[in-house]
Amino acid sequence: MSGLLFSGGTVVSTEGSYRADVLVEDEKIVAVGTNLDTDGAEAVDASGKLVMPGFIDAHTHMDMPFGGTVTADDWATGTEAAAAGGTTMLIDFALQEAGGTLARAFDTWTEKAQGKAIIDYGFHVAITDLRDDIKTELPALAEKGVASVKIFMAYKGTPLHTEDDDLFKVLQLSKDAGVLVLVHAENGHAIDKLQEQALSRGDTPPRFHALTRPEPVEAEATNRAIRLAEVAGAPILVVHVSCAPALEAIHLAHERGQTVYAETCPQYFAFEYEDLAREGFEGAKYVCSPPLRDPGNRPALWNGLKFGDLQIFGSDHCSFTTASRKRSAWTTSP
Amino acid sequence: MSGLLFSGGTVVSTEGSYRADVLVEDEKIVAVGTNLDTDGAEAVDASGKLVMPGFIDAHTHMDMPFGGTVTADDWATGTEAAAAGGTTMLIDFALQEAGGTLARAFDTWTEKAQGKAIIDYGFHVAITDLRDDIKTELPALAEKGVASVKIFMAYKGTPLHTEDDDLFKVLQLSKDAGVLVLVHAENGHAIDKLQEQALSRGDTPPRFHALTRPEPVEAEATNRAIRLAEVAGAPILVVHVSCAPALEAIHLAHERGQTVYAETCPQYFAFEYEDLAREGFEGAKYVCSPPLRDPGNRPALWNGLKFGDLQIFGSDHCSFTTASRKRSAWTTSP
Amino acid sequence: MSGLLFSGGTVVSTEGSYRADVLVEDEKIVAVGTNLDTDGAEAVDASGKLVMPGFIDAHTHMDMPFGGTVTADDWATGTEAAAAGGTTMLIDFALQEAGGTLARAFDTWTEKAQGKAIIDYGFHVAITDLRDDIKTELPALAEKGVASVKIFMAYKGTPLHTEDDDLFKVLQLSKDAGVLVLVHAENGHAIDKLQEQALSRGDTPPRFHALTRPEPVEAEATNRAIRLAEVAGAPILVVHVSCAPALEAIHLAHERGQTVYAETCPQYFAFEYEDLAREGFEGAKYVCSPPLRDPGNRPALWNGLKFGDLQIFGSDHCSFTTASRKRSAWTTSP
Amino acid sequence: MSGLLFSGGTVVSTEGSYRADVLVEDEKIVAVGTNLDTDGAEAVDASGKLVMPGFIDAHTHMDMPFGGTVTADDWATGTEAAAAGGTTMLIDFALQEAGGTLARAFDTWTEKAQGKAIIDYGFHVAITDLRDDIKTELPALAEKGVASVKIFMAYKGTPLHTEDDDLFKVLQLSKDAGVLVLVHAENGHAIDKLQEQALSRGDTPPRFHALTRPEPVEAEATNRAIRLAEVAGAPILVVHVSCAPALEAIHLAHERGQTVYAETCPQYFAFEYEDLAREGFEGAKYVCSPPLRDPGNRPALWNGLKFGDLQIFGSDHCSFTTASRKRSAWTTSP
Repeated sequence: MSGLLFSGGTVVSTEGSYRADVLVEDEKIVAVGTNLDTDGAEAVDASGKLVMPGFIDAHTHMDMPFGGTVTADDWATGTEAAAAGGTTMLIDFALQEAGGTLARAFDTWTEKAQGKAIIDYGFHVAITDLRDDIKTELPALAEKGVASVKIFMAYKGTPLHTEDDDLFKVLQLSKDAGVLVLVHAENGHAIDKLQEQALSRGDTPPRFHALTRPEPVEAEATNRAIRLAEVAGAPILVVHVSCAPALEAIHLAHERGQTVYAETCPQYFAFEYEDLAREGFEGAKYVCSPPLRDPGNRPALWNGLKFGDLQIFGSDHCSFTTASRKRSAWTTSP
Repeated sequence: MSGLLFSGGTVVSTEGSYRADVLVEDEKIVAVGTNLDTDGAEAVDASGKLVMPGFIDAHTHMDMPFGGTVTADDWATGTEAAAAGGTTMLIDFALQEAGGTLARAFDTWTEKAQGKAIIDYGFHVAITDLRDDIKTELPALAEKGVASVKIFMAYKGTPLHTEDDDLFKVLQLSKDAGVLVLVHAENGHAIDKLQEQALSRGDTPPRFHALTRPEPVEAEATNRAIRLAEVAGAPILVVHVSCAPALEAIHLAHERGQTVYAETCPQYFAFEYEDLAREGFEGAKYVCSPPLRDPGNRPALWNGLKFGDLQIFGSDHCSFTTASRKRSAWTTSP
Repeated sequence: MSGLLFSGGTVVSTEGSYRADVLVEDEKIVAVGTNLDTDGAEAVDASGKLVMPGFIDAHTHMDMPFGGTVTADDWATGTEAAAAGGTTMLIDFALQEAGGTLARAFDTWTEKAQGKAIIDYGFHVAITDLRDDIKTELPALAEKGVASVKIFMAYKGTPLHTEDDDLFKVLQLSKDAGVLVLVHAENGHAIDKLQEQALSRGDTPPRFHALTRPEPVEAEATNRAIRLAEVAGAPILVVHVSCAPALEAIHLAHERGQTVYAETCPQYFAFEYEDLAREGFEGAKYVCSPPLRDPGNRPALWNGLKFGDLQIFGSDHCSFTTASRKRSAWTTSP
Repeated sequence: MSGLLFSGGTVVSTEGSYRADVLVEDEKIVAVGTNLDTDGAEAVDASGKLVMPGFIDAHTHMDMPFGGTVTADDWATGTEAAAAGGTTMLIDFALQEAGGTLARAFDTWTEKAQGKAIIDYGFHVAITDLRDDIKTELPALAEKGVASVKIFMAYKGTPLHTEDDDLFKVLQLSKDAGVLVLVHAENGHAIDKLQEQALSRGDTPPRFHALTRPEPVEAEATNRAIRLAEVAGAPILVVHVSCAPALEAIHLAHERGQTVYAETCPQYFAFEYEDLAREGFEGAKYVCSPPLRDPGNRPALWNGLKFGDLQIFGSDHCSFTTASRKRSAWTTSP
């Protein structure tokens, strides 16, 4: 017998915690128990340690071009960091290029990852250009192993932004193709106006990133995506829920029996609006979208995790160096 | 002394009901009471009758071009019908023409009404084309006595349809101009897709008018308009609320303290989806937007009237003859 | 013509505010208007003043024995104070004595008031002893002009306290008699235990009055009374609602269509828990039941008044001098 | 190696379903996996079968005296039936006798079970007589392995019924003793009145069992128990939740962050009020408390299970033969 034996640790699973050894062969758990037959297995001493299933981070952005720069982690550094923290699989976002196909996005991102990634990975494909040929491409995408596509309701003025007609159409098509639609839910129209007005007033410090994306624009778009999914009869996943008003829309959908999945992220628990309001460029290190919020939202988010309105805790890892943040076209022109 | 004395009736006001005479001079109530000094007044015997203030119908469409036809009531027949029912003032919708100004809409509708109307009237002005010169026109409109403008979130493919950027901008501008924004809240994008799909399937009987405008598209747009008003810091009035899910969005806004006004209409209490589903062209007589709903919505609407979530009961009088309904371009091309 | 003419003022009614004179004859308003015929009427100059209908305070306790003392205002001083503030009618609580009848309570309180009261008055009768003969007395009480009875769910250990069996029975009987049941809604059992425990710890400063009657005991009893009324099919009036959790129970009842009336009082807006926590005997001046609360409850109470969950604003005027507060048996033995 | 090997089946756990063998030694699972070392183990072929953990039924009543009869299943037949269905542990209710101690209840029930039960078991102890010596007995009960006590808010007129003062006191004491309080939540006072009135009208068919225990009396008591637990700062478990209004009280407690556990039972999904309303004695076979409800409650109950407001699915197995139902003193005198 060959394999790896993690012995002496405490196994933690959704069943609870208990003393057990774990035998792994060919990257598969083949036995969990005590007094396992382990002849020939290589022993790993897990005494005094917790032995957990590898985590899946369902929301990352490795080696992604954005706003004139590219995210700081590529598939080597990003997956090494993930592995160090116990995460053994990533689901990253492959972005459709203007004029390109979804298959092309999948291929491009696969090339980025291949030979670099040291853990498992999969892809959501972000639809940015819903041409007629793209509509017919969805079933083939599912056959390639892509189970989910993403639509951005925000970022008006960039190719990412999608209007309701295409969002609704994607919900209908994805339902038929057996693919789940993920939404970045913020009202791009209102944000665009607020940014334009802030710029014209000279309000450019980082905290205006939050002030031009207030909670109601996220709550609004969350409700809109959910209601369109209701009409389409399709499930939906709202990613990076940051505040109580957005969560309320999800909760009400659950109360009426609709299939809505939702994710929140660690940054909304670890940081807050005041970090974004730090002096000078320091605040710019805390820019993310939706933005950091008032910590008064946290009890609601914890309740959402506790009672199942929020099922996913993803990182939205989308790293930028301070240098690239300073260089970004978006720093001056959002 | 001159004037009109309504004597012997029971006065009904928001204070209650009580026996009193009402003396009117120069179209103004100058005294309510018993044993009034009425020398020279012309007596009107109101014995055994209820004497009420004239009703104001805040939602009518007289002599309005729509879908290739025109509404059946003009300002003569429409105001005669209103007066017969005790309504002494209408607020009608003046529609901005493509390329036209708001002032022009006001003038055009004033011309339609002048010399024909036998009761008081005022106008909401519907904004359909928010050019830069229109943005600056709002304060002047308020000075003309127009207290409210209307935005259509529905009717995609017609000049009426307005996207969120213009809706949001109008909310900001109207707040500064002291003008109230009224919204027709239905998601035009989703309706457009559903209509296109129904037509391609040959589903053209009148009941598909309702099936292509289901409750969630009204609920969604209602919430969206309210959330955009929240960000703009502006009050808003949602007209013709037809169903419980839309009312829920209004109720939640009231619970968080937002200033939201809302109207419902008699058709949602007197008729229902089954009327629209009548055989042949008969169902077409029951077409209105938002459409007639399942009567299960009524207890919620009654509660809304009782507890103040709905403050206005307007007719949305927008009459079409059977002949004009048959002739309308919209009968075959919605 | 005789009478009083209030001239030159601004009349304020539920209809709005407007310039008008008010002519009163034999204590009745006989005319409201301008240019009234006022020959012989005594003029009262109301220029620059607001002319309002007399207020009705539906919750007072004049000349009432309680806790070994008696309330400070009798029907002379109490009604003079009311009149000075524009209140022209009181509805006071007549308490049934142990062994006594409801008619006797009515007669006793009528005697207290007669010859002293300078304004109108009526009575609620508080039922403290629901013997079989009392059950049959309710219809006769209604004929005497008493439209409401009161039940105390609090004050365990005193004759006022009523258990659920009698509360439920009174709701059933009152419905048949056409009489409305008012409840003082606090859980007497839990309060009794908390007071006993506070006393045994020596926690006797006034703030423990609030700490032994926390918000959930009011919320609980409010919901209980409402649910028992629902089963009995009877309307109910919850008096002196002090906090958001109690109001929530009322709001939910309204949402399901139940007839529930509710009152709040000025003390819950003007004062707060911190007043009760003042040093020494000073805090004792702020004792009332339910007790003063955290001011975080106020936005909910304002919303309740605005949207109709709370229909009544009564004073619960139940005055005690500092001397009588110090003398009261309840100061040491609650 | 000895032991039992369940081989070839599909293991179902909270982690999911997967192909694995299960090795059991000394009644403990020692290994789960494929290719386990199983020398000397006795093989059980589980091919084509689901292999699940033994179920725990946390709500049974074996060999229990009630209403002049005794439940039909004793610890032999009852645990055999449980085992046949895959249930490997029961938690039964040991009832305190009038005048007896909690330890005595535990001992009596242990004697009933010993030598008869073929599966594991534990006890909740029902407190029916909260004398001072009982208050001090709780910590010792916890040391015996009893983790929970039960209070009956219903059954007024029997020793089971407990008033709020004792319920509140038990909540306070149990918190200190580390014991969880379970409540049967129905308002005994209102039920008693309704039963008395039904009997006086001759309304004795089984369906009056439900009509004298309507949903609001369960909703009321559920909320009351939860609010008293909130004041006591103690966790609580509401057993056999039968209807949406009771569940709403639990849901609201969860929304405010309170620790409330709740159970529902299969009878509320499999049967309904119409079964209780069957002709003649047939309906009596469907008597349980809380009673069977309108099936309109089921979507809410399913949602409660799905989103975690209800964490426990217990049988409330409390079996009576038709003969004993006919003999019961309660058939004529509830």
